[in-house]
Amino acid sequence: MTVTSAKGFVAAGVRAGIKKSGNLDLALVQNIGPLNSAAAVFTSNRCQANPIIWSKQVILDGQVSAIVLNSGGANCYTGPQGFQVTHATAEAVAERLGISSGDVLVCSTGLIGEQLDLAKLQTGVALAAEDLSASNGQLAAEAIMTTDSVSKTTVFSSPGGWTVGGMAKGAGMLAPGLATMLVVITTDAIATSEELDQALRAATRVTFDRLDSDGCMSTNDQVTLMASGASGIKPEFDELAAAIREVSQSLAMKLLSDAEGSSHDIAIRVSKAASEEDAVSVGRSVARNNLFKAAIYGNDPNWGRILAAVGVTDAAFDPYDIDVSINGVSVSRKGMPDQSRDLVDLTPRAVQIEIVLNAGSHEATVYTNDLTHEYVTENSDYSS
Amino acid sequence: MTVTSAKGFVAAGVRAGIKKSGNLDLALVQNIGPLNSAAAVFTSNRCQANPIIWSKQVILDGQVSAIVLNSGGANCYTGPQGFQVTHATAEAVAERLGISSGDVLVCSTGLIGEQLDLAKLQTGVALAAEDLSASNGQLAAEAIMTTDSVSKTTVFSSPGGWTVGGMAKGAGMLAPGLATMLVVITTDAIATSEELDQALRAATRVTFDRLDSDGCMSTNDQVTLMASGASGIKPEFDELAAAIREVSQSLAMKLLSDAEGSSHDIAIRVSKAASEEDAVSVGRSVARNNLFKAAIYGNDPNWGRILAAVGVTDAAFDPYDIDVSINGVSVSRKGMPDQSRDLVDLTPRAVQIEIVLNAGSHEATVYTNDLTHEYVTENSDYSS
Repeated sequence: MTVTSAKGFVAAGVRAGIKKSGNLDLALVQNIGPLNSAAAVFTSNRCQANPIIWSKQVILDGQVSAIVLNSGGANCYTGPQGFQVTHATAEAVAERLGISSGDVLVCSTGLIGEQLDLAKLQTGVALAAEDLSASNGQLAAEAIMTTDSVSKTTVFSSPGGWTVGGMAKGAGMLAPGLATMLVVITTDAIATSEELDQALRAATRVTFDRLDSDGCMSTNDQVTLMASGASGIKPEFDELAAAIREVSQSLAMKLLSDAEGSSHDIAIRVSKAASEEDAVSVGRSVARNNLFKAAIYGNDPNWGRILAAVGVTDAAFDPYDIDVSINGVSVSRKGMPDQSRDLVDLTPRAVQIEIVLNAGSHEATVYTNDLTHEYVTENSDYSS
Repeated sequence: MTVTSAKGFVAAGVRAGIKKSGNLDLALVQNIGPLNSAAAVFTSNRCQANPIIWSKQVILDGQVSAIVLNSGGANCYTGPQGFQVTHATAEAVAERLGISSGDVLVCSTGLIGEQLDLAKLQTGVALAAEDLSASNGQLAAEAIMTTDSVSKTTVFSSPGGWTVGGMAKGAGMLAPGLATMLVVITTDAIATSEELDQALRAATRVTFDRLDSDGCMSTNDQVTLMASGASGIKPEFDELAAAIREVSQSLAMKLLSDAEGSSHDIAIRVSKAASEEDAVSVGRSVARNNLFKAAIYGNDPNWGRILAAVGVTDAAFDPYDIDVSINGVSVSRKGMPDQSRDLVDLTPRAVQIEIVLNAGSHEATVYTNDLTHEYVTENSDYSS
């Protein structure tokens, strides 16, 4: 149940020797057709890694034959030398697979500001090209892991006979636009690159872009969608788009559950907003409030911190006509305490915050995690 | 060296029984004149506590005779009952001191969403009115402490024979506009309320508003400036404004050093910006980046996280023409690694980040703290 679940795709995950741990660190996914339509969305951070700069050019014509991904280094802020490494990696893949380097996407993840060792990447590409098979999708998913505690894969099988598969890595720096993640989604449905682009953007907007684990946006994020057409079936666009959205949401929830050091998965649902934008803006403000997140870690239903976070947004609302519930207990109504906060049980991992703005008819849910000792531990000792 | 250092002010700090700990929890500062000019700035959070709503009315005419402050409860989101408690507290002060309640500012700090006990406040006001003296300024500073580990006071003595004194509370939720703080500044200089307002706004803009300890903005912040004119001296406006700024900066740095659970004080100086606004926006983005803040806690000079935080702003810059130094070591220049990050010594408490945008001639410094285990501990167990 991963990128090779869709027909027309082969994959590999190998040890290139980039990671000091000696773990799998290079993944290769090839689309063997008959189609090679593709679409991708990239981080909106203005500081972009070399593989992002490269991949943005590759995707312009909507045609992709392979994607190579390495963990163990972000290749970001590494200057012209870093860009040459990205370019040479694509060339190595092209040469091994007999394709054009202009059809090879590159993704990297890891520490910013360190040069990658090109020789190791080339060795890895050679190994991966040898290993490509429809049964190695799981190894590819493992090779892109960084601080992830588990590999993340998913599959959607249409009763109509076509399939969407996916893999993702990410366990921190999860913030919209995109979160810190590398995602590869494959399908054997027949689709044009325009259709894929439209379906992918619609899906990421309401899935990956609504994850906000720690408010930190990465320099390397990329979500790629490739179609082989190998099923021979062309689904209705809406059907395909729904499948892409379902796969995206499934992977997004796996990223959320594995966020660094978290002990609660928090869904913040904002309803009766004047616009969807307002609902998202309020949800994000709460999701990024360290005081709120630390309180949830301490199983402390400190709802004043929720309202204080709502109050810094410019969403439409009357501060004294907002209702807040935590795990089903109405703790505040119309600017006053309602039921006792002592009734709230925060021991389960899943936490549901409901914020009713009473200003309209729109809604959105933003997902985040609590702020824990383990988060601080993991992130205070990453590069060293 | 506190609010009673300026002539014409008396103060008290007493136990009203609001805090469970039994510590001092109510402060009263009276301006005995001859002038009673005043100015105040308030939180920009749209969710405002009852004392803020009250005090905004009181300050309209620029005349203030006394300010009463309680710790142990924020009186925020407590509805009409909460507002009545604020009003009645001002009335109690007015009655005891023989002044108008319309000249009494009220401040509260503590947990949001709990009613304050009016009888305790009234008892506290009675005790404080009895205790008012020019030698009790330090007790007032202690009575406004919440999670503060030390009381914060300061004084500026002009060679011209006039004085500015101040006290502050705040140890978390430090974010601009204002940070979570209650501040009272007094002066025996002669000044109109218009002059005080202009001087105070100019000072807070570049001092308290550039503190960003955890990005969380409070519902109760208030900075108050009162002038008694008791020195008989009217300084030049610029001289007075400079003194107010100096006292504000001194108190701001004390707030920074005492921020909850911090182990580093971080100054983020952004220079060669296209505008001061750009410089502040870049500084704040870095100051709010949990990954950067956790890295500093771990003495890890992970400069990629600084650039990733710069990249999410809309300030004017070329991502590949930014220079970054940490504690004097140039770790990145023009989008490439410069000196080895291993040269950076992050063991001292003071950390200096220099970000050169190479886009103009403006600069600003934003102050923050690291994200520590102790921060999480303190803030995961506050209301319970």
